Amino acid sequence: MSGQGLFVSFEGIDGSGKSTQARLLSDALKRAGHDVILTREPGGSPGAEEIRKLVLEGDPDRWSAETELLLFTAARRDHLERTIRPALAAGQVVICDRFADSTRMYQGLRSGDLRGLVDALHDLMIGQEPDLTLLIDMDPDAGLARALGRGGNEERFESFGGDLQRRMRQGFLDLATAAPDRIQIIDGMRDVDAVAREVWSVMAEALG
Amino acid sequence: MSGQGLFVSFEGIDGSGKSTQARLLSDALKRAGHDVILTREPGGSPGAEEIRKLVLEGDPDRWSAETELLLFTAARRDHLERTIRPALAAGQVVICDRFADSTRMYQGLRSGDLRGLVDALHDLMIGQEPDLTLLIDMDPDAGLARALGRGGNEERFESFGGDLQRRMRQGFLDLATAAPDRIQIIDGMRDVDAVAREVWSVMAEALG
Repeated sequence: MSGQGLFVSFEGIDGSGKSTQARLLSDALKRAGHDVILTREPGGSPGAEEIRKLVLEGDPDRWSAETELLLFTAARRDHLERTIRPALAAGQVVICDRFADSTRMYQGLRSGDLRGLVDALHDLMIGQEPDLTLLIDMDPDAGLARALGRGGNEERFESFGGDLQRRMRQGFLDLATAAPDRIQIIDGMRDVDAVAREVWSVMAEALG
Repeated sequence: MSGQGLFVSFEGIDGSGKSTQARLLSDALKRAGHDVILTREPGGSPGAEEIRKLVLEGDPDRWSAETELLLFTAARRDHLERTIRPALAAGQVVICDRFADSTRMYQGLRSGDLRGLVDALHDLMIGQEPDLTLLIDMDPDAGLARALGRGGNEERFESFGGDLQRRMRQGFLDLATAAPDRIQIIDGMRDVDAVAREVWSVMAEALG
């Protein structure tokens, strides 16, 4: 692969292991001689990291869902302009931990139904999708138990928004059904190495 | 006037005197027994003031025009939700120093032509106009001389963007032509008291 680079995102619910897989893939590609940058959202450029801090610090209810959506979109625009597009233009592989699909789920499903608004704002102000999205699919109960260090109990799980995680898992799967050429579903219920091997084989195909 | 409140914005180029007129009108309305809040953009609510700081502090080129537009729209959404709409619902007169028309000019005309994008984003995420907009119209050279304490010289004027100020003055006048029921043009070239008297008479009519 050369010239135009390749833009790869990892998506999945909390505890799915996608951040670990993004890092393992980045390391493996570098060992194979590829020019790779590993980045993440929200954030990924100096300006976007400042916006991330503004959104995530302080009272979680201080921004409405719509204002939060605008702030995350501003951060994504900055990340795209300052980090992702220059790297792609230089022929690099860009591996991004979360991109617009996370906004479709987290902002789109959380308060009422903002999915239509999320899509309209994306089309207007971002208008770019990854070349390839690796969806690490995970049962929410198992994902949360993993996130809590295997000490998960039902009460704590519900306070983390168990119902929301279940709706988001289904939402991610529905996105994959709607965009089968872009989104590949990877079964995240296996051990880390087995998942990493499948991620690698999907990437090998994408890199030609 | 009671019940639904009245939303009034002041617009104009730099040095037009609109902030002074907004304050004088607010004072006069209070003396006449009205329940008034005076606010301004960007800012006007705690969250929007934080976004204002993020945009206006630091290197002025660190945000692209599109990212800046998203940040200002996030600030406006917060200002509308937390300050303007609650005040209108309580029956207050809201006087706002700059609103969406300023974005149409400052972000819409500054880099290339983003006017179409500015309008589309406004329709999608804000969707509200003032009941009445007072456009304080001012010759840019005179306005800048005033802003510089009557010591304006041509070189400094040009470094302030004299050509941009002239295009913005014309742009504001074009907005007024397109929305004659909402935007009233006030000749700002007269002394402060004469301008304030005309502002008062326009307001008296709007208040019924």
